[in-house]
Amino acid sequence: MRKLLSVCGTASAILVGAANAAPADAVAAAKEYRQDHAPRILREFADLLSLPNDAADARAIDANAEAIEAIFNKRGFAMELLRYEDAPALIYGRRSVEGATRTIAIYVHYDGQPTEDANWTHPPFEPTLYSRAIPDGGKQIPFPEDGDSVNDDWRLYARSAADDKAPLASLAAALDALEAADMALTSNIVLVFDGEEERGSPNLDAYLAAFGDRFADVDLWLFCDGPTHQSGRPQLVFGVRGVTGLEVTVYGPDRGLHSGHYGNWAPGPGWRLARLLASMKDDQGQVLVDDFYASTAPLSDADEAALAATPGVDRDLRRRFGLAASEADNAPLAERILLPALNLKGLKSAEVGEAARNVIPPSATASIGIRLVKGNDPEAMKDLVEAHIARQGYHIVREEPDRRTRLKHPLIAKVTREGGYRAVRSSMEGDLVEGLIAALKTAAGDDLILAPSLGGSLPLYIFEDVSEAPIVILPIANFDNNQHAADENLRLGNLFYGVDAYAAVLTME
Amino acid sequence: MRKLLSVCGTASAILVGAANAAPADAVAAAKEYRQDHAPRILREFADLLSLPNDAADARAIDANAEAIEAIFNKRGFAMELLRYEDAPALIYGRRSVEGATRTIAIYVHYDGQPTEDANWTHPPFEPTLYSRAIPDGGKQIPFPEDGDSVNDDWRLYARSAADDKAPLASLAAALDALEAADMALTSNIVLVFDGEEERGSPNLDAYLAAFGDRFADVDLWLFCDGPTHQSGRPQLVFGVRGVTGLEVTVYGPDRGLHSGHYGNWAPGPGWRLARLLASMKDDQGQVLVDDFYASTAPLSDADEAALAATPGVDRDLRRRFGLAASEADNAPLAERILLPALNLKGLKSAEVGEAARNVIPPSATASIGIRLVKGNDPEAMKDLVEAHIARQGYHIVREEPDRRTRLKHPLIAKVTREGGYRAVRSSMEGDLVEGLIAALKTAAGDDLILAPSLGGSLPLYIFEDVSEAPIVILPIANFDNNQHAADENLRLGNLFYGVDAYAAVLTME
Repeated sequence: MRKLLSVCGTASAILVGAANAAPADAVAAAKEYRQDHAPRILREFADLLSLPNDAADARAIDANAEAIEAIFNKRGFAMELLRYEDAPALIYGRRSVEGATRTIAIYVHYDGQPTEDANWTHPPFEPTLYSRAIPDGGKQIPFPEDGDSVNDDWRLYARSAADDKAPLASLAAALDALEAADMALTSNIVLVFDGEEERGSPNLDAYLAAFGDRFADVDLWLFCDGPTHQSGRPQLVFGVRGVTGLEVTVYGPDRGLHSGHYGNWAPGPGWRLARLLASMKDDQGQVLVDDFYASTAPLSDADEAALAATPGVDRDLRRRFGLAASEADNAPLAERILLPALNLKGLKSAEVGEAARNVIPPSATASIGIRLVKGNDPEAMKDLVEAHIARQGYHIVREEPDRRTRLKHPLIAKVTREGGYRAVRSSMEGDLVEGLIAALKTAAGDDLILAPSLGGSLPLYIFEDVSEAPIVILPIANFDNNQHAADENLRLGNLFYGVDAYAAVLTME
Repeated sequence: MRKLLSVCGTASAILVGAANAAPADAVAAAKEYRQDHAPRILREFADLLSLPNDAADARAIDANAEAIEAIFNKRGFAMELLRYEDAPALIYGRRSVEGATRTIAIYVHYDGQPTEDANWTHPPFEPTLYSRAIPDGGKQIPFPEDGDSVNDDWRLYARSAADDKAPLASLAAALDALEAADMALTSNIVLVFDGEEERGSPNLDAYLAAFGDRFADVDLWLFCDGPTHQSGRPQLVFGVRGVTGLEVTVYGPDRGLHSGHYGNWAPGPGWRLARLLASMKDDQGQVLVDDFYASTAPLSDADEAALAATPGVDRDLRRRFGLAASEADNAPLAERILLPALNLKGLKSAEVGEAARNVIPPSATASIGIRLVKGNDPEAMKDLVEAHIARQGYHIVREEPDRRTRLKHPLIAKVTREGGYRAVRSSMEGDLVEGLIAALKTAAGDDLILAPSLGGSLPLYIFEDVSEAPIVILPIANFDNNQHAADENLRLGNLFYGVDAYAAVLTME
């Protein structure tokens, strides 16, 4: 049985008596503050980055939680380290604002991907400053002293510099900037800092279920993770794709047969799998499974307008990845990720290359991933694919077929269904979201891209399950941050953009 | 540079003055002789089987060659151990017969598959006698003493008991039987015993080229290898399939891409491979590559008649291999192997199962085997498959495509062509072959199956290249001999059938 524990941190809610400021003023104050105090902001960030944060290392992750608790406690938040079994703490913070009529929750994760030190130019937990990106010829430079000026193109190298400690540093600096300018926050702020996102947040639903009362008044969820747009421009993202999948194995003879003695007599499972897969998706990327697109929620006019305003990155991406063409006659990536996807993650039957033998193999397997968009139910989408397989004449089984089954059915497919979760996509309309967009534009300019969805998947449905509040993703890291890889880095201009962005959010009208 | 060496053994050609006998008389004499001398035949065979014969062990293989040289030297053959570099000796023997107007060459191989002792019930080179097959409840029994009777269902367990030392024992006994009955041979006999067949006879063509004069007068090649028909009935086989193949790799992005961020934008190589393969073969096993069947030599009336007389084994084989149906609407195996086959030996793209990741893989590979029948040229058949791939829109390359190639061609297939060799199929007609068939029937009865071809491949084209003589395969081993596996065994009835069969061949009219 799982056990729940709540460990309260030091609560020190502060009532702020400062004047309300328009986001534009707050952004101006943030810019001034961060220019004056950039060396100190950097030092505090580097201190945080020097703490190893692999979620598998309980002691290390605890040290992070305590440091982060202190950072925001100092900035007027009542902090708690919520505990569920022996999972990393979910860091909770609340700062109530006099007269505020709404609550914004800010989600960040403080764990990082495991590191393989050997691949790093500098050890991943020894933050190191460069004059620009290393592949672009950057040179190592010393950390600036108070009073030194700082360049936007400098890069800070360390694990989690981008993914996902950068928002913590930007948010702390934004709070300091508003404090220094005596500007009031306009919303109650709730902090939710996840300690095992890189492991798939396996306990996040349990945390929310156990501590749901702490989130009951949230009016807007702000997810602060991921990079800015591939074009380099800032973005707000209104959703994520869901994900599920299944594995299909089809069969030939019950053992490998000599391809001379039995070749073109014994049915080859690879041919069967090829025909089955070819029936699922055409050469333009259109999925041929009946009703695969039917449950997809339509886009609003606002979504369509946002898409139309999104800069094309397709040509650059095709060049980057060595592709002469992308699916659906080069249809834009931004549109494609608003459709459910059927992905072939892997294929296997016997061996290829030097290991190939003259054999009719007994089976062939395909690992199929399904990315979901708003409206698609994970189970229903797998049902559609299964129904398609059955329509191709296959008898579907859940275990390796026994002799009796083999002799009865010419075509047998073992289908193993994976778990998964649905997509989330919030509306770009409504006072609150429109207020957020307007505020962000004071930091990002009219450059701000509004994206209906990420292509990737995050389990944001967990938040949708506990609240009807819109869910919006606000990324600040540079696109080329080497997320999850060696030499992860943050461009300082992106850290500073984060300071401006949070100042705008904290003072949104 | 390769060097040729010929080491002559002791030549002792014997002129035989005995009377010509009809094959029926010779078979009767053989039956009487082997009933009287079965214990001695078994002992001599067991002595030969006690010699380890992995072709990779030069010393062991030499010991076999010397023992076999002695066996046939004693029976009137002039023997030579032909030497080519450090390859196992090709054992050559000749017995010239007064008045004979033709020469029959008998091919056997004396090397065996490598053994994994742990899997054997008894060590593979300690010949052991059983009352019947071990899985059928056979019990170990002592070797019989002179005068003891012997049962046809007994099994002799040892490596090469069936594949392929059995013909050596049967032939030696047949020679003794004719000698004892004072019956003359009716043909000159040439012996060709290969010492590295299980390694693919890599030097056989070099041997034949270097020592071609010794084979110049051969009128009929008799290949003594392999098992009797799956029905258990004796057979003569008039050909083998050829073999070649190619490997095809198709491409997606130049690196694995996140299936969320880029799924249904980046083309998946697995889907491409599936569509390409699905275009090659239909769900009834019909190959859809243009002209794939066009070069296939037609069957003669004699071939058709032989096929019509072949007992159906398909239902049993389907049950044995757990197949509800075989290709081409359950068309008989005997007919299917007379067509060229396109076999899918293996498939691979990224990973499946636990190792599968959420990725659009960079490539997908298929290992394709082609089995050839008479008339199919190995290179021309690969050309047809390549042309088919090109017709599906693929740009064909020989190496991993570079960036420029990737950006120019949406569809790229790397095709790696394998070597291979053509099929051989001799006519069932003509005086010599009809004489052979008639002689064999005196040993095998009207049960004798005439098969136009094996499904498997042997490099018999090497013999076709040096001589126009027909090539016929005479197998004697039981079908369930565990060839190439542990507990290889010979049913004694099959050893004795071999004695009768060789007596008939040696006296054919």
